[in-house]
Parts: sequence; C-alpha cells; structure tokens
Amino acid sequence: MQDSGDILLRELGNDGVLRLTLNDVARRNALSEAMLAELGRTFAQAGEDAAVRVIVLAANGPAFCAGHDLKEMTAGRDAPDRGRAYFARVMAQCSGVMQAIVNCPKPVIAEVTGVATAAGCQLVASCDLAVAAESARFSTPGVHIGLFCSTPMVALSRNVADKHAMEMLLTGDMTPAARAAEIGLVNRAVADDALSEVTMEMARKVASKSSMTLATGKRAYYAQREMPLASAYDYASTVMVENMLAHDAEEGIGAFIEKRAPAWQDK
Amino acid sequence: MQDSGDILLRELGNDGVLRLTLNDVARRNALSEAMLAELGRTFAQAGEDAAVRVIVLAANGPAFCAGHDLKEMTAGRDAPDRGRAYFARVMAQCSGVMQAIVNCPKPVIAEVTGVATAAGCQLVASCDLAVAAESARFSTPGVHIGLFCSTPMVALSRNVADKHAMEMLLTGDMTPAARAAEIGLVNRAVADDALSEVTMEMARKVASKSSMTLATGKRAYYAQREMPLASAYDYASTVMVENMLAHDAEEGIGAFIEKRAPAWQDK
Amino acid sequence: MQDSGDILLRELGNDGVLRLTLNDVARRNALSEAMLAELGRTFAQAGEDAAVRVIVLAANGPAFCAGHDLKEMTAGRDAPDRGRAYFARVMAQCSGVMQAIVNCPKPVIAEVTGVATAAGCQLVASCDLAVAAESARFSTPGVHIGLFCSTPMVALSRNVADKHAMEMLLTGDMTPAARAAEIGLVNRAVADDALSEVTMEMARKVASKSSMTLATGKRAYYAQREMPLASAYDYASTVMVENMLAHDAEEGIGAFIEKRAPAWQDK
Repeated sequence: MQDSGDILLRELGNDGVLRLTLNDVARRNALSEAMLAELGRTFAQAGEDAAVRVIVLAANGPAFCAGHDLKEMTAGRDAPDRGRAYFARVMAQCSGVMQAIVNCPKPVIAEVTGVATAAGCQLVASCDLAVAAESARFSTPGVHIGLFCSTPMVALSRNVADKHAMEMLLTGDMTPAARAAEIGLVNRAVADDALSEVTMEMARKVASKSSMTLATGKRAYYAQREMPLASAYDYASTVMVENMLAHDAEEGIGAFIEKRAPAWQDK
Repeated sequence: MQDSGDILLRELGNDGVLRLTLNDVARRNALSEAMLAELGRTFAQAGEDAAVRVIVLAANGPAFCAGHDLKEMTAGRDAPDRGRAYFARVMAQCSGVMQAIVNCPKPVIAEVTGVATAAGCQLVASCDLAVAAESARFSTPGVHIGLFCSTPMVALSRNVADKHAMEMLLTGDMTPAARAAEIGLVNRAVADDALSEVTMEMARKVASKSSMTLATGKRAYYAQREMPLASAYDYASTVMVENMLAHDAEEGIGAFIEKRAPAWQDK
Repeated sequence: MQDSGDILLRELGNDGVLRLTLNDVARRNALSEAMLAELGRTFAQAGEDAAVRVIVLAANGPAFCAGHDLKEMTAGRDAPDRGRAYFARVMAQCSGVMQAIVNCPKPVIAEVTGVATAAGCQLVASCDLAVAAESARFSTPGVHIGLFCSTPMVALSRNVADKHAMEMLLTGDMTPAARAAEIGLVNRAVADDALSEVTMEMARKVASKSSMTLATGKRAYYAQREMPLASAYDYASTVMVENMLAHDAEEGIGAFIEKRAPAWQDK
C-alpha cells in the first residue's frame, strides 16, 4: 500500500509560503479517495497554522491533475446499489475539498503545468489565483465518456463567461494556457521555465501582507459575491469597520502615514 | 398569406444536426408573431425528437435577425388599450422563445451572418454557443427609437461584463464580430467563407456525444448558475451521481478504460 | 476652511452633459467627508434636473481619486469608541454615494486620468461606463496597509472576473489602463490627449437619446441583473410594455418608420 503522505508533498518556507505538490504521477495526480483525503486534511491544517501565510498548489509529472480516479469509480459499481452510495460519498468529499479551498483563510494559488482536466480543471478554477505554464492545457472532457462535468462546471462557470464555459463543457476540447488566460480561468500564462519563479514571487508578495487582513478579505470576497448589491454594501461596510479597529490596520495605516514598514501582529 | 413554414427552414442531417435557417429575408428575419410561433414550436419539437442531437440556428439574407417587427408592433397600438395587452402578449411570447432555447435539452449553436440587432442580438446571446462571420455585427439599438432593449439585456448581461453590456445598450452602437468574441457574446469570429464549415464541425462534434449526457449537463448548467456556491455543489453532486448510474456513463467510462469507441444508448 | 464647492467642479453644457471634476488636488481627490457629501448632493440633484442628460466624472491632478482620506480616518480613532461609530458613518456615506451612481437615472461615465486607487477604483467600477487615459492606473491597495479593500471589491467584483479581482485585491498591484480594458474594468483605454474628446463624444451620443428611455433602461438593467432568469424576463417584459406605451417610444418608432429624426418629449 502506498504511503498516502507521498502523494502530496509539502514544503513550508520561511516566507510563509506552503508549497503543496500533487505527486501521484503514476495515476496522473487523480483525485482518488486518498488524494482527496490528503488535500482536505492539508487545507484544514494549513488554515489553522499561523506559520502558513499563502498556499501554492503545484504538481509533478505530465498531468497537473486528471480529475476523478475512473478505475476507483468503476470498482465502486460492484456494490449492491451499483455504487450509488459510494459515488455520493466521493462527490461530497470532492466538493468538500473544492469548498475547503474557497473557505481556507489563506490565499491559494495554482501553479499549473501539464493538463488539468475535469475535477483537475475544477481544482484550478477553485483557487483564488492561478498561473499557468504556456504549455499547460485545460479541459472538462466528461462529455467524451458520457459523464458531464457537472461538479467541475460549478467552479468553471464562476470563473469564465457562459459561452466559454459551455464550449469547454459541450465539446470537451482542450483549452491552451494562453486562451485560458484570455477567458479568465487563469490569471496569466508564462514561459514554462519561468512558471515557478513567477508563481512564487506572487505568493511571497501576498505572504508579506497581514494574514488577518488576507483572511478577512478573502472570506468577505466570496460572501459578498453572492449578495444583491445593497446587501453586499451593508455587509462589506461592517467588515471594513471591524478591519479598521483591528491592530494590523491601525499599524498599517500608521506606518503608511509615517512612511515606514508595518509590523504585522501575526508575524 | 405567407406560408409560415417558409420563414423558418429545417434540415436534419444523418449526423443529428438540425439546421434551422431564419428565412423571412424581406422582413430582415424580424421576430414577427409568425416567426416567434415557428421558433417556439420548432424548439419544442426538436427537444422531444431523438433524431435531433444538436441545433444550429442560421439565417438567410443580410440580417441575421432585426428583432421585433416594428410595423406589427405599431399596428398593435390601434387597440382600445393602445396595445397594452398586445405588447404584453408579444413580450411573453418572445421571452418564452428565448427561454425555450435555454431550456431545450439539445445544445443550440448560433451561426451568425449579417446584423443581429435588439431581440436578434438576444437570440444569439440566448444560444449555448455562437460562431460569427467576421463581417457580422451586433447591437441593441432600442435607445435610438425611445425603446430601451430591456428584454434583450436580460440575455446580453448574462453573457458579457456590465460595462460592455451598458456600452451597447446606452449608445446603441454596432459591435463588430471580433469585438463580440473578445467580450464573450460569441465564442469566436471566423472568416465569412469558413463560417458554416466551422459551425457545422462544432455541431457535429457535440452531436457525437451522448444526448442523455448533453441534456443532463445543459439543464444542470443553467440551474446551478443561479445558486449560491454551496447549494450549487450539493445540486451538481446529485446530478453527477445520477449521471454515473446511467447507461451511457457506464458505457463511456468502460469504453475509455478499454480504449474503444463508446456506443451510446440513444443512438 | 476650504469652500467645499471648490473640491467638485460642475459644468453643464447645452448638450445636456454635466461634467463633474474632482478638484481636491492637494488631497489627491480623496473621498473625504466633504467630498462624499458633495458627490452625494450632486448626484441627487443631477438625477432630478431635467437639463442634465448624462454625467461625466473627471478629475484634476495626478490622482483620479486616492480613496478614503486616511488622515481623517486616523483622526477618527481619538473617539472613546476608538472610531467605531465614525468609521461606520463614513462607510455608510461612501457606500451610499457609490449606490447613488448606480441608482442615478442619468448614465454616468468615468473619464479616468492618473491613478484610481481603493475607493477611487470603486468609483470607476460604480459608473455605468468608463474611458481611461492610456497612462491611467488602477489598484485596490488596502492590503498594503492592513485594511482589505472590502467595500471597493463589491463594485470591482461586479465588473471583472473573480481571478482578476482577486489578483488586484490580494497583491495590491497597479493595473495599467490597457489591462483594465481587457478585464472589463473600463470600456476602453485611449491616448491621453484624446481622452476628453472620446469621453465627451460618447457622453453626447448618449445624451441625444430620450432621458425617459435611458432612465427606464438603466434602472431595469441593475434590477434584472440580480434576478434569476425567469424572473428577469417577467420583470423586463413589463418594463418593455410600459416603455412601449410611453410617448418617446411611440415618437421614436414612428420617426424610425417615417425615416425622420425623433423629437423627445423631455427635450
């Protein structure tokens, strides 16, 4: 049995950047039950760990992530209920991991190499930011195998325009990194050999900010996104007031006025 | 009296692509009551017809569709209520056709030539996918005649960013196909003489998929789009479980693992 | 004490374009309490004034608007409640001004020069249309000072895709005008010396339309934007019926059919 710890590598730098690397290369980093469990546990722990300020999600091998493990799913059909209970459990587990990224108080940045397909594409869409190698490609190919990418489209359709999402979903075609950047699925596509440098530079920049402030803002972002305009303003205004009263805003504004570097409480 | 069947041409290929062609050239393919009735009936029938796998909506003449028939609308003013009941009926009929496209279980692809204006632009925005000739142009020009394109903007604002929608709505200016592709109103703009080939190739690609899967996915797409994230995931997860238990997913996944072509049940 | 009238210049042309110019150059056009009061009063009055057909919001000096007045905010901390009541009042006032732009029956166009940061960026995002000088730049830099741009993000996230909004919010980096145009924060970026001409031409074009029609359409746009599709169509259809029955639509459609220029009632 494979040590589940090996399929997801962790490296935490002094800069507060936790670098996670999907490392189940033989299975194209599929979201097996073991991988989902690792990711779920890791995002939960990282969310609580004050030493972690920003998370980068990278991958080893030619596939960033190939989505669900189809052999594992197929084996689930052997149950008396033809897999219904099993499928429901895996879908809930997978949707839980995607929402754990959204709900994680630390910003999460995808560093995409190779192909990100199905739930692998959803993983990128679920991150707060994403940088892709020029050679990276994206698709939601479930339609090829009779299984529409219905959970991936939840994240995809919250990143790109309807017609772009529908083209990926209905054709199953690959979207090159440059096009993914045009439609908003990733922030930018960069030369393959510059990818880690660009991503880590972005990560360190974000990591230099107050963790309290980042957590406040990230949570508020996704919350207000789902509200009507007037409610969103009422809500965001109360968030601003609390943020103003927190140490790091008083320190940050004071430092700005006094033209000095701020000293965040959580550092 | 014109045979209403002539204003909308139908051609169903062996590939399962139903090609509809707006053919009321003298009226610039206006959405007259007769045209709306034809479209409504046709989308309803095509939705039920197992031989139809994908629908392409094209047009003859220099206008893809000029929107409502202003002469017909003006004639409606002669009623004792100055047309109120008539306008309400036509608006309901038109909004019904637009939603029939969205709710049709078969993917609908617009193949846009010439100008698509007002409710004609809305027709394009309401399709799942759209390919435009480079010479095609789009506008919501109601503001020129004192009648804001309020129903067209429902579809338009669900395709493009607010500032882009507002520019079209407040100025009434024409948007060239290349710009329409940039802002997400159409999937792409192609050379005029390649338009049908590109669109039909896309249509045949989608038509080769399982109709059950396409119907499941399209319905789920627009349903989840209007839900908060957590509800969308709960809903999409149940869709995935049912999809997994359907014949075509079992067949498709099996074929993928065995490296053979799938045989869809509905073919 | 500075005459508050001087910090916001007003110029109303015969074309119905009200040109507002932020003119508190020494404070980088910060949204001080005085500036917010001026803006709130001015948008309310302009909304009621039949002579005003379109509003352009421009600025003098190197900053379009630097957001909240941090010195004023910091002074607010001296209160026994550490500023809580004061901050709440300023946030409500600022959110009120932003929503006054959205709710103003007259279209509002930002003409952006220099840097638009924090609530200054929000001001641009809140306008219906925006044209930027090529040298203009945008940012939501609150994260640098421990105060996440939580109210600016309400407007920002309704203009651009999530990953683009998050990049601005999490990094605090400047976005050049050309990139702002790509992601939908502004309609277009133009040569610096053409900015006023392009913006005023757009403003005059919109101002030539029926004010009743513009007001009807603008209100309906933002209302339907927050509704599910079916409700949006029901609502927009009733708006269309009322619009059809109004003088300016009858006049506009008649003029169109008779190929003459329309004479709007409100002119």
